[in-house]
Amino acid sequence: RSMATSARKSLTIGLIPADGIGREVIPAAREAILAVQSELPEVKFIDLLAGWETFTRTGAALPRETVQILKDECDCALFGSVSSPSRKVAGYSSPIVALRKELDLYANIRPVRSVSADPARPPAVDLIVVRENTECLYVKDENLIVTENGKEARATRLITERASSRIGKIAFELAKARARKLLTIIHKSNVLSVTDGLFRESVRAVPGLPGVDGKYDDVTIEEQLVDSAVYRLFREPQIFDVMVAPNLYGDIISDAAAALVGSLGVIPSINAGDAFVMGEPVHGSAPDIAGKGIANPVASIRSAALMLRHLGYVSAADKIDKAVNDTLAPATILTADLGGTHSTTQVTDHIMGLIKR
Amino acid sequence: RSMATSARKSLTIGLIPADGIGREVIPAAREAILAVQSELPEVKFIDLLAGWETFTRTGAALPRETVQILKDECDCALFGSVSSPSRKVAGYSSPIVALRKELDLYANIRPVRSVSADPARPPAVDLIVVRENTECLYVKDENLIVTENGKEARATRLITERASSRIGKIAFELAKARARKLLTIIHKSNVLSVTDGLFRESVRAVPGLPGVDGKYDDVTIEEQLVDSAVYRLFREPQIFDVMVAPNLYGDIISDAAAALVGSLGVIPSINAGDAFVMGEPVHGSAPDIAGKGIANPVASIRSAALMLRHLGYVSAADKIDKAVNDTLAPATILTADLGGTHSTTQVTDHIMGLIKR
Ligand SMILES: CC(C)[C@H](C(=O)O)[C@@H](O)C(=O)O
Ligand SMILES: CC(C)[C@H](C(=O)O)[C@@H](O)C(=O)O
Repeated sequence: RSMATSARKSLTIGLIPADGIGREVIPAAREAILAVQSELPEVKFIDLLAGWETFTRTGAALPRETVQILKDECDCALFGSVSSPSRKVAGYSSPIVALRKELDLYANIRPVRSVSADPARPPAVDLIVVRENTECLYVKDENLIVTENGKEARATRLITERASSRIGKIAFELAKARARKLLTIIHKSNVLSVTDGLFRESVRAVPGLPGVDGKYDDVTIEEQLVDSAVYRLFREPQIFDVMVAPNLYGDIISDAAAALVGSLGVIPSINAGDAFVMGEPVHGSAPDIAGKGIANPVASIRSAALMLRHLGYVSAADKIDKAVNDTLAPATILTADLGGTHSTTQVTDHIMGLIKR
Repeated sequence: RSMATSARKSLTIGLIPADGIGREVIPAAREAILAVQSELPEVKFIDLLAGWETFTRTGAALPRETVQILKDECDCALFGSVSSPSRKVAGYSSPIVALRKELDLYANIRPVRSVSADPARPPAVDLIVVRENTECLYVKDENLIVTENGKEARATRLITERASSRIGKIAFELAKARARKLLTIIHKSNVLSVTDGLFRESVRAVPGLPGVDGKYDDVTIEEQLVDSAVYRLFREPQIFDVMVAPNLYGDIISDAAAALVGSLGVIPSINAGDAFVMGEPVHGSAPDIAGKGIANPVASIRSAALMLRHLGYVSAADKIDKAVNDTLAPATILTADLGGTHSTTQVTDHIMGLIKR
C-alpha cells in the first residue's frame, strides 16, 4: 500500500497545527522530520490554516486555499487538533472531518502499543484500530423538524459496500503483515442488521470468500459487538490484534484503547487515502493545558513517523520510533499526562538528541 | 418517580429468561424475591417466552402473547438475556429492543458501583448510567439499495425533544438525590450538531433554565463527548456520578463502566417507563458458558432489587442488596467471572442464606 518513494525528488509537507495544543506539538513533529532528513528527499514545509480560531477570524474553519494547496502542492500533511465551540455555531463544522472527506482519506489507522520497561517482555497492549473515515454518521446528513410534540432531529448513518470493502482490505493487509494475524470486525449488527450487516459482510468478502468463517492467507477473522469490544478491551486487551470498525465505533474504540497505554498523548494516527496521507495525533486540542508548554509531543512525533512509514520511508520512521520508545521506556523524561514534570520542549529535545546520536 | 405501592394487593411479575445463561440467572432473581416476600404483597410469577430459541421454535422472537400478558396481567417483569444469530436471519430481530419500545420503557438505568473490602472506604467507582431506551439508531429504520457502485445501506438516527427531556428529567432527579449531585451529559455534538445538539439542549432545559451553564437545585451539569467519556471512564472513573446518554452511547458507556468493577456479571439494570418496569442484567446470554451452571447470578439478583426499589419496596430491595454486598465484599464465594470457583447455585444459596438470617 505504501506509495512508491523512488520517484520523489522532494517531499512537501503541509502543516496544519489548528487549535490549542496542536500549535505546540506540530512543531515537535516538524523537528523530528528534520532530524531524519538524511533519509528523505529534500523536505519542504508549508504552513496552512484551519480550525476554530481560523473560523472566528476568517469565517471559514477550513479555508478553500488550505484544501487547494494540500491537493496541488503537498505530498502529505500533519494536522494538530481542533477545538469545537461548546454550542452549535452557524456555519461552523469540524475541519478535520471535512479534510478527511475532501482528500478521500478513507482509512484512519491508529496503532496502540504499550512500551514495556523490560524490552524482553512483549507489550501488554499491541493493537491497531483501523477506522473507516468517510461515512457512518460522519456524513453529517442531519435535519430538524418541529412537530406538535416538539422538535425531532434525524441523522443518516451511511454504510456502503465500497467504503467497507476498501477499509476491510487495508485492515486485512495490516493483519496479514503482523505476527498474530488476527482481524476483529467491530459492529452492532444485532441491532443494525442492515448497515452493520453490510459492513461486516463487505469486510468478510475481502479475502474473496464471502461469508465463510475461518482463516484466509493465515489471517483469522473474528467479530465483536462494539459494546462488548469496549468491555473486553478493558479486561483483556491482549485478545485484540487488528480491529476494523465503522467510523463512530472506531472513534470510541481508539480512545478506549488509548486509555490502556497511559495517555492519549502518545497515540498517533494517519488518515490515509490512495493518493494522500495525513498524520494526526489522536488527542484533542486540550484547552485546559493549551499555551502552557506542557503538552505531550509524542503523539505528533509518532504520527510523523507513521506518515513517513506509510510513504515508504521506513528507515526514517524507524529512527524516530526508536528514539521515542527509548525515551518512554526508562520513564525519566515525561510530560505531566504520563506523570512526569517535563515540558513539551524538554521531551522533544530529548527525543531529537536520541535521533541524532 | 416510584409508583405507589400501598394500593397493590398482589405483585405479579413476568419472568422472561430468554436465552443462554438468562435461564440460569432469572431463577436466582426469582428466589431472591421470594426470600423477601414478607416485605411485599402477595407475589405471583408468570413464565413468559421470548428470544432466539423461541424464534427458532415458533417463528416469533417476541410472541404477541408475551406482550399481551405483560400489559394485561403483570406489574413488572424480569428479562434474562438474548442470543443473536451470527448472521442476519429474515424475520428475526432483538426481542429486548422490541419490548422496551412496546412497553415504552424509555429509561434504562444502570448503577455501577464497586464493592470495597473495607466498608470505611468509599467505593472507587460509584456512578449511574441513564440511557435513553427508545430511539437513536435503535428505531431500526434501515434500508438497502443497490447502485452502480455496489450496495448502500442507510439507518436513521432519531432524537426527539420529548424523549430527551423525559430521560433528562429522570437523570436530573437521580442526580439530585445523590451525595455528589453531578450530572454529565454524554454526546458527540462536535459531529452531530443537530441530533446530539437537540439531546444536549433538551436535557439542559429540564431544570427550566434552557441552555444556561451552572447549577440548578444544587445539581451541577457537565458535558463530555462520548469518545473522551470512555477514555476518562477508564482513567478517572471517580469524576462521574450520573451520566445521561442517547441510546447507543449509553449501551457502550455502560459496558465500559461495567469493566471497571470486575465483571458484567454484577451489573443490574432496569428498563423503566411511567407505567411499567423491567429488570434486566446488563450481561448477555454468554453462549460460551451457558448450561454449565457457572454464570454469575448477582446481576440478575440486583436487577430484581432495583426493580423492587423502583416500585417503592425499599426495605425488600435493601435486604437483597445488603446480602449481595456482604457476599461480594469478603470475596470468598464467587463465580468464575470474578475469579472464584463457585457455581451459580452456590452463590445464590449463599446470598439467600444471608437474606434469611
Ligand atoms: C474532533 C472529532 C471530530 C474527531 C472525530 O470524532 O473523528 C476526533 O474525536 C478524532 O477521533 O479524530
Ligand atoms: C442485546 C442488545 C440488543 C442490547 C442493546 O444493545 O441494548 C444489549 O447490548 C444491552 O445493552 O441491553
